[in-house]
Amino acid sequence: MATTGQVITCKAAVAWEANKPLVIEDVQVAPPQVGEVRIKILFTALCHTDAYTWSGKDPEGLFPCILGHEAAGIVESVGEGVTEVQPGDHVIPCYQAECRECKFCRSGKTNLCGKVRAATGVGVMMSDRKSRFSINGTPIYHFMGTSTFSQYTVVHDVSVAKIDPVAPLEKVCLLGCGVPTGLGAVWNTAKVESGSIVAVFGLGTVGLAVAEGAKSAGASRIIGVDIDSKKFDVAKNFGVTEFVNPKDHEKPIQQVLVDLTDGGVDYSFECIGNVSVMRAALECCHKGWGTSVIVGVAASGQEISTRPFQLVTGRVWKGTAFGGFKSRSQVPWLVEKYMKKEIKVDEYITHNLTLGEINEAFDLMHEGGCLRCVLAMHV
Amino acid sequence: MATTGQVITCKAAVAWEANKPLVIEDVQVAPPQVGEVRIKILFTALCHTDAYTWSGKDPEGLFPCILGHEAAGIVESVGEGVTEVQPGDHVIPCYQAECRECKFCRSGKTNLCGKVRAATGVGVMMSDRKSRFSINGTPIYHFMGTSTFSQYTVVHDVSVAKIDPVAPLEKVCLLGCGVPTGLGAVWNTAKVESGSIVAVFGLGTVGLAVAEGAKSAGASRIIGVDIDSKKFDVAKNFGVTEFVNPKDHEKPIQQVLVDLTDGGVDYSFECIGNVSVMRAALECCHKGWGTSVIVGVAASGQEISTRPFQLVTGRVWKGTAFGGFKSRSQVPWLVEKYMKKEIKVDEYITHNLTLGEINEAFDLMHEGGCLRCVLAMHV
Repeated sequence: MATTGQVITCKAAVAWEANKPLVIEDVQVAPPQVGEVRIKILFTALCHTDAYTWSGKDPEGLFPCILGHEAAGIVESVGEGVTEVQPGDHVIPCYQAECRECKFCRSGKTNLCGKVRAATGVGVMMSDRKSRFSINGTPIYHFMGTSTFSQYTVVHDVSVAKIDPVAPLEKVCLLGCGVPTGLGAVWNTAKVESGSIVAVFGLGTVGLAVAEGAKSAGASRIIGVDIDSKKFDVAKNFGVTEFVNPKDHEKPIQQVLVDLTDGGVDYSFECIGNVSVMRAALECCHKGWGTSVIVGVAASGQEISTRPFQLVTGRVWKGTAFGGFKSRSQVPWLVEKYMKKEIKVDEYITHNLTLGEINEAFDLMHEGGCLRCVLAMHV
Repeated sequence: MATTGQVITCKAAVAWEANKPLVIEDVQVAPPQVGEVRIKILFTALCHTDAYTWSGKDPEGLFPCILGHEAAGIVESVGEGVTEVQPGDHVIPCYQAECRECKFCRSGKTNLCGKVRAATGVGVMMSDRKSRFSINGTPIYHFMGTSTFSQYTVVHDVSVAKIDPVAPLEKVCLLGCGVPTGLGAVWNTAKVESGSIVAVFGLGTVGLAVAEGAKSAGASRIIGVDIDSKKFDVAKNFGVTEFVNPKDHEKPIQQVLVDLTDGGVDYSFECIGNVSVMRAALECCHKGWGTSVIVGVAASGQEISTRPFQLVTGRVWKGTAFGGFKSRSQVPWLVEKYMKKEIKVDEYITHNLTLGEINEAFDLMHEGGCLRCVLAMHV
């Protein structure tokens, strides 16, 4: 392409400091270096993790930065040594890398690749520990190794999933974070069996994807728990069979669920990021086998707690990141499942806006009726 | 037998109140009722759970009671409807019942039978909610459904494991609690694989049985952690390959272990009952897959805590009771393994005393050099 090897100047939403509106700026995006891929981002969605870092509560948050991690686009150019994608490939950037070489990737036990974390954790690229983004010479930090709130971004090659070019990018961008996280929590982390009773705490995108995953796994009851009863109607479409609003009960919610289920649920999922809810999610599990999976991300410094007797009597406490999916290997598979109509994606998209409207999009996200807002990046 | 259907008067160690020396008394033991078995206890060992309840710190502890739950004996008589054992059978009383009929037993997921817990939890028998022990008409509570510090005891039939009559009862009495708890934590709960790195916190009987189980599972490194360095020499005989004394380090013990193992252990086991150690045991596990099993029993009211990030990044927190073994089905199998010299038992017995010396036996238990003290009940 004409831009190969050149600095590209494009629009990006820059978070100059915590908790201040994002500003659409002309950003210089340097060419990809060894092992890097420059991607033209066509569509990006917003996720609560973006809002968390933006809020300033994330102690690892660095400013100024370009947020965004749930997106889809087309490879513009590749750096030296990149063999698995080439310009023109349709891709989903993956905040969870997969190098297939490190101790983690080779373990067969986890999706948490360690290859580029030391760089992505501090907002730079591995090869030279520098950012590829700048504005008139001032470097702007990367975020989660993806920074998809830019019309062009540079990512490590181990963080790029090549997908079917027929897939609609304005939809499958959601397969970069929330939907796989929920589905995988059920399929990979909990391994829910047919006939199980499942509780889902928090009926946002991730919680609904948990419900969808549980339904496809054959769960007999899927109990949605949320303090906003307005979410219940939508949740039915994703497989939730019954609803409990903790505000309607005087008893602790774990006791309500234990009573409802003759001793507790087989599997529970915390999809909020609230440590008190994480405890409730564990304690509503059935003695002897109930497994609780933490999916939500709690604020820094917060701790979970319970009586050890809860575990000694057979409950299991786990967590998941990106639903346990191996990103480069399995995101393309999820795209295929979507194309075959085996998983929902369109149904999570409640709003469509443009990059220029990103601050409104964040406002929408904090309203109950919004699941995912997808931004068109080049209009 | 001549005693069938009769009240038997025999010697038992009675805990009249918390924290006061046990008193050897003449106790009346009523005949077994429907579904009950009266056992002549020949040998009993002492376990820390006996000491915990005796200390008064167990809020469910009831006095006066007859403690003891790790023992072996011979069936003296059986109540109506008992079909699986008969007088003369060699048996091990099991504080964890196995009815094979309840929701728990049928689940295939747990050993925590619920059949008689409502009675054993409050020191009585199911059929009439009364005790079979009395002294001149004053009822004495049962303990854990076993009460083996008596020359004769009455237990529910679902709590009796019939074993090979050739097995030496003065040894296999240990298969009633501590040794199976440690072995099963490794084999059933954690399912340690060959080549794993294992950490064991606390090198008492249960911790050493964990080490033995890990060795037989093919663990490549078994790191023993204890604040008493004198325990290390003995621990080698049970499979421990390296030792760490937290007192020798300024860093938190979890960090010491992470540094020693290039990122953490694959499996850890807390065999003490200390909630701070439970946290350390979780946090010394490897990101992505490390699994920590709580084996020790913490004091009432105490809580475990950690940052949820520990679980979200792939660590798993579990617990175990009686090592996950189904008591009636698997204790006889453990006895067979002992007879074939596939598991150690003799090596855990450091002291042999008599029922009359039980207070001295408890004193010994709190000394570092004692693993198990076995009491002969009829000398």
